Amino acid sequence: MPTFQTVRGMRDLLAEDAEMLNFVISKARETAKLYGYREVITPVIEPYELLSAKSGEEIRSRMFTFKDLGNRTVALRPEFTASIARLATTALKNEPKPLRTLSVGSVYRYDEPQRGRYREFYQSDFEIIGTSNPEADAEIILLTDRLMRAVGLRNYAFKLGHVGVIRGILSQENVDEKAQNAILQRMDKKEFDEAFKLVESEECLKTLRGSLELKSDDVFETVERIQSHVEGYSKAASSAEDLKKILKLVTEGECPVATVEPAFARGLEYYTGMIFEVYIPELDIALGGGGRYDKLIEVFGGEPTPATGVAHGLDRIALAMQMQKTAPSTKPEKRVVVVPVKEELRGEALRIAQKLREAGIPTEFEVMGRKMAKALEDADRRKVDYAIIVGERELKQGAVMVRNLAKREQILVEIAKLAEKVQS
Amino acid sequence: MPTFQTVRGMRDLLAEDAEMLNFVISKARETAKLYGYREVITPVIEPYELLSAKSGEEIRSRMFTFKDLGNRTVALRPEFTASIARLATTALKNEPKPLRTLSVGSVYRYDEPQRGRYREFYQSDFEIIGTSNPEADAEIILLTDRLMRAVGLRNYAFKLGHVGVIRGILSQENVDEKAQNAILQRMDKKEFDEAFKLVESEECLKTLRGSLELKSDDVFETVERIQSHVEGYSKAASSAEDLKKILKLVTEGECPVATVEPAFARGLEYYTGMIFEVYIPELDIALGGGGRYDKLIEVFGGEPTPATGVAHGLDRIALAMQMQKTAPSTKPEKRVVVVPVKEELRGEALRIAQKLREAGIPTEFEVMGRKMAKALEDADRRKVDYAIIVGERELKQGAVMVRNLAKREQILVEIAKLAEKVQS
Repeated sequence: MPTFQTVRGMRDLLAEDAEMLNFVISKARETAKLYGYREVITPVIEPYELLSAKSGEEIRSRMFTFKDLGNRTVALRPEFTASIARLATTALKNEPKPLRTLSVGSVYRYDEPQRGRYREFYQSDFEIIGTSNPEADAEIILLTDRLMRAVGLRNYAFKLGHVGVIRGILSQENVDEKAQNAILQRMDKKEFDEAFKLVESEECLKTLRGSLELKSDDVFETVERIQSHVEGYSKAASSAEDLKKILKLVTEGECPVATVEPAFARGLEYYTGMIFEVYIPELDIALGGGGRYDKLIEVFGGEPTPATGVAHGLDRIALAMQMQKTAPSTKPEKRVVVVPVKEELRGEALRIAQKLREAGIPTEFEVMGRKMAKALEDADRRKVDYAIIVGERELKQGAVMVRNLAKREQILVEIAKLAEKVQS
Repeated sequence: MPTFQTVRGMRDLLAEDAEMLNFVISKARETAKLYGYREVITPVIEPYELLSAKSGEEIRSRMFTFKDLGNRTVALRPEFTASIARLATTALKNEPKPLRTLSVGSVYRYDEPQRGRYREFYQSDFEIIGTSNPEADAEIILLTDRLMRAVGLRNYAFKLGHVGVIRGILSQENVDEKAQNAILQRMDKKEFDEAFKLVESEECLKTLRGSLELKSDDVFETVERIQSHVEGYSKAASSAEDLKKILKLVTEGECPVATVEPAFARGLEYYTGMIFEVYIPELDIALGGGGRYDKLIEVFGGEPTPATGVAHGLDRIALAMQMQKTAPSTKPEKRVVVVPVKEELRGEALRIAQKLREAGIPTEFEVMGRKMAKALEDADRRKVDYAIIVGERELKQGAVMVRNLAKREQILVEIAKLAEKVQS
């Protein structure tokens, strides 16, 4: 049989890569705890209907969809928000609001593989459910800022927008929601000409085209330009006001906002309000992004419930750390290997290894049955600190030989004092 | 739209359940570190060919198999060993031996849902690759023992067997491997009559039937009975000898072995040597199990490489902990909520919240825009310890009100000393 490879778009994370991902996950959990978000674990497999309901055509067409053995049409989650909205209408329906949740795990999209983009990737997803206040949106952005800092990233910056501005203009011109979604999907891909073809009213077209020209280097200036640009559109105007409040709160929180983008849209269809993404200069894909979705829970059969959230691309953050050479700070720990001098002493040697582990010392056991010289050579090559040599003569004195592999020195140590000696 | 439910066999882990699973995972990682196992992260989606090659008919028929959008036949992993064997023949081929790996994550089997059995479940999987010595098997059992202790389980016990005994008898009677697999699959389900129908030789049948009668209350006595029972079968005899050595090492390590089972078989087809499972009296499904698989890596196109390993059912372990009322010991942490007295103070209040979080204090922010009395009432109901009330007058003195919600008392605290005060 030939050797097997991973499925295209999938990959293995080995050694440092796995450690790096776990480090980012630990920082996401730490952030959740500090902000009062509680972890929930939802399934990778969800009903296709749930995941496709409001995700938008783009994501829908890239889902891993199949029938299970009971002939149910299911899919692998392409993101977490639909699952959390499901919970908010079922098991967590009666929880006091705001409901703050964290989800961590793998998600699946059939995208073209490229650097930083795999078909299985990892997200930490924060959602705050039950309030439409700008503080909630600000909190989502600020905790993302905190996570970026906690993993040691530099020069990252946020891009902000508000789907309510474009939607507000369109709905006042009687463009229905389906057409709005199609327009926003195209705007997300920067296909503005394609997007605007879908708009009939000349008046509306003028306003939309004009909105592309509003960007200033000063983010507050941009918001003010948006405000005067949409003056006649009441919903768009109140969206711009909402954006201004959020922007004020996050900049007061010393969060680096690089741009406010009047024509900013995101791939997911369910957004209704503020949307944002965070980037580093070295990488042209977002490290995280999110926004407000005030209708999703209602669409899923729940009470009308405003909500906002963010998903962080954990493997992309790990990639960003590598690009910025931001290694997680891990203190090196002493490692030991226990080597019995002969086969009959294996039981005794195993017990000594167990004792060291109980004292919290990472301890390998020589399981290859190699001769002493060979075992020590191998341990040295693998940068083990000490070899504990278990021999008959020393055991009679209640002791073992402890060999410092780097220094090539060995001393006799009482078994009772072994853990203490190794740790010192 | 009606509310959505989870797909049959899937489930959500909320609040304490999620915490419990994460606690068990943290103990598995701690165990890996103490024993020198390094974590690797492999994909949930693997080639169907890889997962089905040596898993056995039982598991093969219960896999979630489908075609991806590129028309590849893929499946969701039903276990980790095939993925690790894949790594051992590819990316980790040249790593020094023994190779010790840990994997943690979800696996998928289309079983009938029942208590402790879901179609998505969680495992920690430890593999040691590159040695056929009994110390390696003993290490796998002993680290499982350590994990059971680390999560606080009581009265758990191990069941040991050795596939080499039955396989040794059968191969000496010229029963080919395929037939051996069929016989072992049936023995795994305790369908002994069905299993024995597949054996032609009368002599062989007698030996097999006889092996069912060898069990003694004394585990070493059982092994000795097996040894004399298979005296004429050289491979079976050396397997029995191997089992004896492993048993000796693990009992010397004070690991509780309840039974040695001469007719013990496990569902997976790739086992060649020692096999084991661990149970608690309260639950009739195994909390973990594993064994030796010396041929798998070779079948996958690698060099002949002996290996042994274990998978722990993490959600079953969490269930066992609940049954034994073994709560993870987590120290309660002080929680605070920051409440601005009026809207204009939100920015200031957010900054105070940020400061508390930077000091490591879990801090919620009042995002609901509720009146003070309502916000405090809600915080009290959710067992928050302190409310930090941010008001204009106090801010002028560089201070805030700190309200102890349980005691219904409040005092003025300087912002500079706030974190310190809350933590004390």
